[in-house]
Amino acid sequence: MNPEVLLSRIRVVLCRTSHPGNIGAAARAMKTMGLSNLYLVEPKQFPDPEADARATSAVDILQRATVTSSLKEALVGTSFVVALSARQRDIGPPISAPRETVARLIAEAGQGEVALVFGNETVGLSNEEILNCHAAVTIPTNPDFSSLNLGSAVQVLCYECRMGAYAELPPLLEQGVTPFSSPPATHDEVEGLYSHLEAVMTNTGFYNPEQPGRLLPKLRRLFARARLERDEVNILRGILASTQVRTGHGRKG
Amino acid sequence: MNPEVLLSRIRVVLCRTSHPGNIGAAARAMKTMGLSNLYLVEPKQFPDPEADARATSAVDILQRATVTSSLKEALVGTSFVVALSARQRDIGPPISAPRETVARLIAEAGQGEVALVFGNETVGLSNEEILNCHAAVTIPTNPDFSSLNLGSAVQVLCYECRMGAYAELPPLLEQGVTPFSSPPATHDEVEGLYSHLEAVMTNTGFYNPEQPGRLLPKLRRLFARARLERDEVNILRGILASTQVRTGHGRKG
Repeated sequence: MNPEVLLSRIRVVLCRTSHPGNIGAAARAMKTMGLSNLYLVEPKQFPDPEADARATSAVDILQRATVTSSLKEALVGTSFVVALSARQRDIGPPISAPRETVARLIAEAGQGEVALVFGNETVGLSNEEILNCHAAVTIPTNPDFSSLNLGSAVQVLCYECRMGAYAELPPLLEQGVTPFSSPPATHDEVEGLYSHLEAVMTNTGFYNPEQPGRLLPKLRRLFARARLERDEVNILRGILASTQVRTGHGRKG
Repeated sequence: MNPEVLLSRIRVVLCRTSHPGNIGAAARAMKTMGLSNLYLVEPKQFPDPEADARATSAVDILQRATVTSSLKEALVGTSFVVALSARQRDIGPPISAPRETVARLIAEAGQGEVALVFGNETVGLSNEEILNCHAAVTIPTNPDFSSLNLGSAVQVLCYECRMGAYAELPPLLEQGVTPFSSPPATHDEVEGLYSHLEAVMTNTGFYNPEQPGRLLPKLRRLFARARLERDEVNILRGILASTQVRTGHGRKG
């Protein structure tokens, strides 16, 4: 597939960015590497002259940026999401190296929209946010000084995206394709499944929202690993709906 | 050779830098990637508070920086020199891609001191300067917007240096393990899940054994892809059992 098309399918999502200058630097970094879709989740200050100044001639990216009030909203329509994370969490996808994961991101971009997600400069991403992601990467740094600027982190990953898009792509996604596979489920379709699952489990008493524990994160981790297809989401929701009809808690499917 | 030693042999040489902020950003970029030897050839303004501000906790690199009045002076003692150049010159070494050239730089660092040379923000390197270099690299950029910030260019090449220096080492990060992962489910445990699922789906009427279609193969394909863990099988079976209790078709869990 045309590398420019692949790059055009990558969203850069900045969550709760504190410094508008970093938003501008990210826009410039994106544009130098041929990316153009910027999403801003609850930016502290935007638009802002400092963002425009740091963006230089990439202000068009700022002007077309989509501002949302949640990460989920920014991910609507995406089917593969990579988070930048400075450390392994108790929860969420395992941390991997940028190059391999970006290769996968590019391969996934051949199928649909994808996203690279960056947290706040100081606190990073919340656990809830990172559970929306299928993979997590850490940019290898000096263990004694790992303070990579947000703009620099965006630069490095966008550079890897460009290198990956223009590299000869190994047929990563050819593996495991069966004749009856369907397109990847979008983020919102998978979220719909989680909500449905939660409702059924709450109804049957298997899940107690007062004492949530790690049940939902564990289910998210499992299904994120599986990279659900659209048909599969429909099947799983069909099973859930059928149990609701019997228990009388759901509508007739 | 120890990657830290290799990185310690790489000089970053900034020639006639106009903006002190870029010198600070370069220092920070270097330190995050484990480089520490900064040389400044005729900087327009240095030292400078703006350089310190942008360096954040990498000010030690600024304090130890060597200021020289010519590139030749900055290269004394080096045996391999790579220039960053935005375009092929009539003169000077041929332009190559960063990754291959940095691999060579790292190999040369095994023999002695090496350098990465960056020109002025606007005019780059002079022809005379570039003739001091053994190789030249261009960072691949969007042809419509190739305006890579100096700090970003230093970041990308220092990142490639770190990746190159650590390339021959086994991966630092354990793949695929999160702290609450459990052992993989055995074949029979997974089969138990499938039987359970089939029983529930048959009971609710979602699945008709007389007309099986591809429902079971599709579910098997999904869960095989996920490589289920033992805990996950238990959770999924717990959910199934809880729906059975309600429908009165199962035993009390």
